Amino acid sequence: MSTVLHNDNQEQAVGVGIIDCDVHVHPLHPDVIKAYLSQPWKHRFQIWQNTYYKSPVEPTQTVPPGGGKPGTDVDFLRMQLLEGCGIATAILLPRASTSIFHDPDHASAVATAYNHWLSETWLGTHNADGAFKGSITIAHQDPAAAAKEIDRWAGKPHFVQVLMDSGARAPFGQRQYYPIYEACARHGLPLAIHPGTDGMGTNILASQGYPSHFLEYYAGVSFAMQTHLLSLLTEGVFERFPDLKIVFTEGGVAWLPALMWRLDQEYKGLRSEIPWLKKRPSDYLRDHVRLTTQPLERPVSDRDLQDLLSMFDYEHMLLYSSDYPDEHFASPDSLSFLAPDIRCKLLSDNAKQLYRL
Amino acid sequence: MSTVLHNDNQEQAVGVGIIDCDVHVHPLHPDVIKAYLSQPWKHRFQIWQNTYYKSPVEPTQTVPPGGGKPGTDVDFLRMQLLEGCGIATAILLPRASTSIFHDPDHASAVATAYNHWLSETWLGTHNADGAFKGSITIAHQDPAAAAKEIDRWAGKPHFVQVLMDSGARAPFGQRQYYPIYEACARHGLPLAIHPGTDGMGTNILASQGYPSHFLEYYAGVSFAMQTHLLSLLTEGVFERFPDLKIVFTEGGVAWLPALMWRLDQEYKGLRSEIPWLKKRPSDYLRDHVRLTTQPLERPVSDRDLQDLLSMFDYEHMLLYSSDYPDEHFASPDSLSFLAPDIRCKLLSDNAKQLYRL
Repeated sequence: MSTVLHNDNQEQAVGVGIIDCDVHVHPLHPDVIKAYLSQPWKHRFQIWQNTYYKSPVEPTQTVPPGGGKPGTDVDFLRMQLLEGCGIATAILLPRASTSIFHDPDHASAVATAYNHWLSETWLGTHNADGAFKGSITIAHQDPAAAAKEIDRWAGKPHFVQVLMDSGARAPFGQRQYYPIYEACARHGLPLAIHPGTDGMGTNILASQGYPSHFLEYYAGVSFAMQTHLLSLLTEGVFERFPDLKIVFTEGGVAWLPALMWRLDQEYKGLRSEIPWLKKRPSDYLRDHVRLTTQPLERPVSDRDLQDLLSMFDYEHMLLYSSDYPDEHFASPDSLSFLAPDIRCKLLSDNAKQLYRL
Repeated sequence: MSTVLHNDNQEQAVGVGIIDCDVHVHPLHPDVIKAYLSQPWKHRFQIWQNTYYKSPVEPTQTVPPGGGKPGTDVDFLRMQLLEGCGIATAILLPRASTSIFHDPDHASAVATAYNHWLSETWLGTHNADGAFKGSITIAHQDPAAAAKEIDRWAGKPHFVQVLMDSGARAPFGQRQYYPIYEACARHGLPLAIHPGTDGMGTNILASQGYPSHFLEYYAGVSFAMQTHLLSLLTEGVFERFPDLKIVFTEGGVAWLPALMWRLDQEYKGLRSEIPWLKKRPSDYLRDHVRLTTQPLERPVSDRDLQDLLSMFDYEHMLLYSSDYPDEHFASPDSLSFLAPDIRCKLLSDNAKQLYRL
């Protein structure tokens, strides 16, 4: 197996410090996380790790030479992702899948354990050069506990955003979530929403029920992201929290024009329902919403994609991400169809500004 | 109140027989339907009509002069919609909302009652000139009963398609629904899916829970349609039923390129999951899928919409619909941004071919 990912490094010639906004790192074994848990969660975490869903698309290229799960070996990741693809900074999103737990105390305990682990390892002993920036994992099932968790880690070295799963029992615009947004705004931290436990038998996909195949589940993740964006916009979260930034990660991009056109159109007739909005729903996007590029929908014709992206302020709203170490990893070259100045914004400038790097 | 809908009749000059593919007609009072029900459904239908959700956007322009619910007065509808907008043929989609019933026998009984009513009235005594074509209402909760209902009405005068709600407990590609598709294919009838009872407290919107406002619910209906299309494509329904046509009504249109790009892309790596597909998911669209135009997502720039539509075979896949008598009614003029030859396809040719008119 080659350890060289497809990337001809042409982006290094652009001279930007590339920032990868969706990199997943994992503990080598779930026991690593158990060490940070007290009882009864230590026992119950054992139950979870034995039953957790196994993806039908396990990565092959990114397995470390010594074996083990992709994204567990810091030296290999530095060699393969940072050096191999010319990436200067990796924003780390651990996959604690906290929304899988029905017990909110259990979910919050696992979030805390992951944050301790990330802080001590990838953001601590493995991070002399500061190339790794991290996400504060929270469990949105208990917004007050989540806010405390944000308060605990905000300002600690190298934490640059908050992270929660898309799988939820209520859309993210609703009021029970406000403590999370207050905490993010208080600390100036963007909030990333990542696909997680909203399908595959652990939660339901949509009112239409459970999907049968991973492809069906995965291509449908964009519906979960759209549901949350729709809720955040219509409930007025961006009026109430004018500094809040939301990063939709790994949910696709090309659906945005259709949703925004529809929403602006319905707003004309239905604005009396949501009088807290001071402008059209789409007018909040540039100030509050970012989307990571992997998986970017790729039609046969790059021209079609370019035309569609031009229908919203993609130059400022998109953030490059590789989704390393997943099998569908995308190198910076995946954006080579864009003009160099725009590519530079997506690869570096937009993330620098968002994360204050 | 003016009874003239906004329409300058420029389409009549094009010389086509315009076909409106989403017109809703209603009984003047629920008692009309009760007359077609036997016990215990007659009693239980009473309960339903007293508790059914009332839309925050009741129509005003389309209220008949004598009062009563819009879409109940045949003479007024003929004057306002057919003559007023130059529409030659109206495809009628009654709104029986059968998916609201948890009891499948109840749902099937209501479907049968609506079919009797439609056949005797709008398709019978009110239809000397044949301007009205109808939909066979089914309850997808009991696919075997639904197939019998299709057998009962197929071939009866003026029924041209089958109709079911989008609200469901499982995505429509799954195998329990096959009896419905077999019956549609057997009789050469397209199957229309219409938004219905998939939100607003009667069923859930998505894994992300319940919406707060009608705008949020209604703009999100497209996610339900996309979930079903995704399921129908990936489960291989179009390979198993090569003559089946599905009409997505009132679910929007502009989301199609993003979904198709994503699906074709994921298919490359995940086709082993769904080996029954003989070609890319998007390749099935032209042969099997149609979408009605109201509500068409309308950006500020018609050029953007035109560009986006050109990214799929919209010339053949879109069917004009007014959604009369709902408040957001769209006259044929709403498609005036299209070139005349294409407009003619959307307004008439595509529906003529689909419904064999």
